[in-house]
Amino acid sequence: MHGLMQQRPLSLPHVFHRAEQLFGHKTIVTATADGEQSVTIAEWAQRTRRLATALDTLGVSADGRVGTFCWNTARHLELYLAAPCTGRVLHTLNIRLFPEQLVYIANHAEDEVVFVDRSLLPVLWPLADKFETVRRYVVIDDGADVPIPDDPRVLDYEELLAAAEPYQGRFRVDDENTAAAMCYTSGTTGNPKGVVYSHRSTLLHSLISLIADGAALSERDVMMPVVPMFHANAWGLPYGALLAGSDIVFPGPNMTPQAILGLIQDHKVTVTGGVPTIWMGALPLLDDYDVSSLRTILCGGSAVPRSLSEAYREKIGLPMLHAWGMTETSPIATMSTARSHHAALDESGRADARARQGQPVPLVELRLVDPDTGEEQPWDDVATGEIQAAGPWIAREYYRGEGGGAQFTKDGWLRTGDVASVDRYGFVRLVDRTKDLVKSGGEWISSVELENEIMAHPKVAEAAVIAIPHEKWVERPLACVVVKPGETVTPEEIIEFLTPRVAKWWLPDAVEFIDEVPKTSVGKFSKKTLRDKFAGYQMAGPEE
Amino acid sequence: MHGLMQQRPLSLPHVFHRAEQLFGHKTIVTATADGEQSVTIAEWAQRTRRLATALDTLGVSADGRVGTFCWNTARHLELYLAAPCTGRVLHTLNIRLFPEQLVYIANHAEDEVVFVDRSLLPVLWPLADKFETVRRYVVIDDGADVPIPDDPRVLDYEELLAAAEPYQGRFRVDDENTAAAMCYTSGTTGNPKGVVYSHRSTLLHSLISLIADGAALSERDVMMPVVPMFHANAWGLPYGALLAGSDIVFPGPNMTPQAILGLIQDHKVTVTGGVPTIWMGALPLLDDYDVSSLRTILCGGSAVPRSLSEAYREKIGLPMLHAWGMTETSPIATMSTARSHHAALDESGRADARARQGQPVPLVELRLVDPDTGEEQPWDDVATGEIQAAGPWIAREYYRGEGGGAQFTKDGWLRTGDVASVDRYGFVRLVDRTKDLVKSGGEWISSVELENEIMAHPKVAEAAVIAIPHEKWVERPLACVVVKPGETVTPEEIIEFLTPRVAKWWLPDAVEFIDEVPKTSVGKFSKKTLRDKFAGYQMAGPEE
Repeated sequence: MHGLMQQRPLSLPHVFHRAEQLFGHKTIVTATADGEQSVTIAEWAQRTRRLATALDTLGVSADGRVGTFCWNTARHLELYLAAPCTGRVLHTLNIRLFPEQLVYIANHAEDEVVFVDRSLLPVLWPLADKFETVRRYVVIDDGADVPIPDDPRVLDYEELLAAAEPYQGRFRVDDENTAAAMCYTSGTTGNPKGVVYSHRSTLLHSLISLIADGAALSERDVMMPVVPMFHANAWGLPYGALLAGSDIVFPGPNMTPQAILGLIQDHKVTVTGGVPTIWMGALPLLDDYDVSSLRTILCGGSAVPRSLSEAYREKIGLPMLHAWGMTETSPIATMSTARSHHAALDESGRADARARQGQPVPLVELRLVDPDTGEEQPWDDVATGEIQAAGPWIAREYYRGEGGGAQFTKDGWLRTGDVASVDRYGFVRLVDRTKDLVKSGGEWISSVELENEIMAHPKVAEAAVIAIPHEKWVERPLACVVVKPGETVTPEEIIEFLTPRVAKWWLPDAVEFIDEVPKTSVGKFSKKTLRDKFAGYQMAGPEE
Repeated sequence: MHGLMQQRPLSLPHVFHRAEQLFGHKTIVTATADGEQSVTIAEWAQRTRRLATALDTLGVSADGRVGTFCWNTARHLELYLAAPCTGRVLHTLNIRLFPEQLVYIANHAEDEVVFVDRSLLPVLWPLADKFETVRRYVVIDDGADVPIPDDPRVLDYEELLAAAEPYQGRFRVDDENTAAAMCYTSGTTGNPKGVVYSHRSTLLHSLISLIADGAALSERDVMMPVVPMFHANAWGLPYGALLAGSDIVFPGPNMTPQAILGLIQDHKVTVTGGVPTIWMGALPLLDDYDVSSLRTILCGGSAVPRSLSEAYREKIGLPMLHAWGMTETSPIATMSTARSHHAALDESGRADARARQGQPVPLVELRLVDPDTGEEQPWDDVATGEIQAAGPWIAREYYRGEGGGAQFTKDGWLRTGDVASVDRYGFVRLVDRTKDLVKSGGEWISSVELENEIMAHPKVAEAAVIAIPHEKWVERPLACVVVKPGETVTPEEIIEFLTPRVAKWWLPDAVEFIDEVPKTSVGKFSKKTLRDKFAGYQMAGPEE
């Protein structure tokens, strides 16, 4: 027996028309190189309608990929809606990727047009001749003092919009499984892989940013996404804000802590979100700004240091709200919202709870699986395993079947590659990446935990631990350590420091000093580079 | 191009397994005739698993209708999940229906089994022989001192569960459009009509009770649904609480204001919801209880009197949160949550805003249509029209095509039958039911507004205005007035009282005094009964 409910698609036109119809009086502010631009949602919507027509004028195919190479701006948000609402696929290009990765991605996705902020032309334009499918570059003039190429492929965004009639009537995307957007993973191994979001997945994921135990976006909020819009859907915040009717503030190209804090102060931002690096940078400046309007600082992209969250709590009474996910999970999979059973903990216990990655949000399901045996592990906060994820906004495969499905289980769950333990309340605590675990004598050593302990040494700036193949133990840990400027330290001092802190068999067999830990384009430790560097390294290993 | 996201169904097994896995330690309290029963979600889930098996034992068909004739209790919540999670269809029977309607509904839905609270046996059992498809009656013993029929069709709920093994593993409903539940409209004309909810519609509707601008259910809440679970999904609160992980308090059979307020006080209820009558009854007793734990009182089912909401605000600092909808809309369609532009209003202006039915919630779309011309009306707070609704939890037809589709437009929207104006922010203000409007000389007279004005007379207890056919004016209003006990009043006094308050042509042409306004089974004015009573009534009508 079937339900007799309307078959209304879960698609992004709803987000657009809801915002236009109910929240036309709300504002979107964008910080520019030399000031601010403010539009009402009504004005923004009318511009988005023009952009929709312009995509036709540009000859973008019915489901063509529309590349963006942009900062967080109101105009980027126009693209966020105009592309999917007309059936096209928004492809946000990561402005921090290495050139060869950018070229690979634009060609792999077959981007037909790329919208680029003028300030980013120096990064993008040198690659234009390598982009095989891009026929047009539309320059969004953000006032940067950068030459615009004299090339027939180059158009001006404002001229394009001025020449276009606003699209009339309602946008329609009747099949909710239609692709809405795509985003490539910044994988540390192999080529980047494309994740293709559907209208359904994007709309459902956006709704989650409205729930009380999530970001709780409301019409009364002023939301500023610091997380780049070229990261997976900017964590759902822009679409969520349009659904909720929040005012929006976009930081534009100036991502300095001073600029971010200034915007929070000037516009009384209530909800913001960004990676830990941003908030680390802002921490020493907190006293210079009035950020009392803030009620939620969402933080993710990598594990949030407990000390960072606590420093915010101590300074402004507001710890971070930690969320976890990845490009393949849209990205919100868990959030570390306070729970009633945390109320009985002391301040330190609550800080420990907050430092976890949190509990799966509604519609997301997780399980903990031993990557070797495939057996599900108990949620006892002790057993560890790979986190696998299922849900309507979790990827089931990569674009064009890249990766051969290795990252997906037979029953369709995503292997996240993150190793964790989970407590009885479903609170995830990440331990390591599966590929970074050191598998020693049938047991695992968490490279992340070892690194954290080494980095607790007062003379150590950074540390990365990698597995070195070992005849007897299969793998053993090597510590690669960056010493703070002006300090000296010996391998013996490091081992001595670690000895009371970790199990004896976890102690690295060797310590190598390096100038810096190599990083990926998005600032994560590139352990692959380190493994290449230390290929063939020999270590004795413990005796038993 | 299609998205490459997992095809996970939006179905109720997710709600069950999420609650069981993450919130097993939370509690559900049910008030009983002589005390309270408390179970953990883990215990409740295990009982629900037994019930799932028991439905097989009872021989309920794969998609059989499972009737419930119950108060709000933890055991009713077991049925809320066990029936749909095993593919059956939960059919909540309204315990206040007239016997002939109950018989019609149970036969029309083809209920195979009815679960009935022992205290309600005196209402249900006399009808058993008229129920054509019901093979079993399962009595849920709530301690009422009521004889249990000695009949082979009658089983005991607890014995049934004790004999059943808990269902093992995960429930699966792979097609999200599968029927999950049904509920009949309590139409004032014609036979009740069945609305069939799907898993998809129910899950999406439940999510809305979690959003910040809705009931904002959180894990830290204690939620008590006073609205009966036999009303459309109890407004999404029970499923919503399971999704959010709230503690739940069920009022059971004792629905007195004293009992309700006592539960709020004893269990520190934070969110509750019920029809205005409940809160009117509780108002004079508020001083006797500590209800300071409350943060949201959801109110709907009929228009919330501004004075009631204001009385709560003045007494406990908490006005009502008004929501509007109907069985056909699952039911939440709009909510009158405070918006940022209300902040500039004075207290009285904010009270006016709250007294509106509110703004459409995410995923619901409304339009205002002239019922005569079919033309869409502007949202200018002046033009009135019928509210039509679309969205994934809005009905597209009635069960077995009853009503011939008259209540649905050609393009698939629901005609709600409610006449309203809408302001530029999308805030609905109900004016009347389409069928209760008095159509006088090509213009409309709102029977509801006239009634409100008449009821403002200090000697009037109740008033209902109905349309009387008129040769010249098509229809003219007749006022049917109930005078307060011990008072007397003349028709002339009523008209004189109204004269400065309404347009001259709105003045009723006659006033008739009646003993009481006839009511439907759910307590609404039955104007049909009045129209029958005054059939053939003659009135002069105004001269021009």
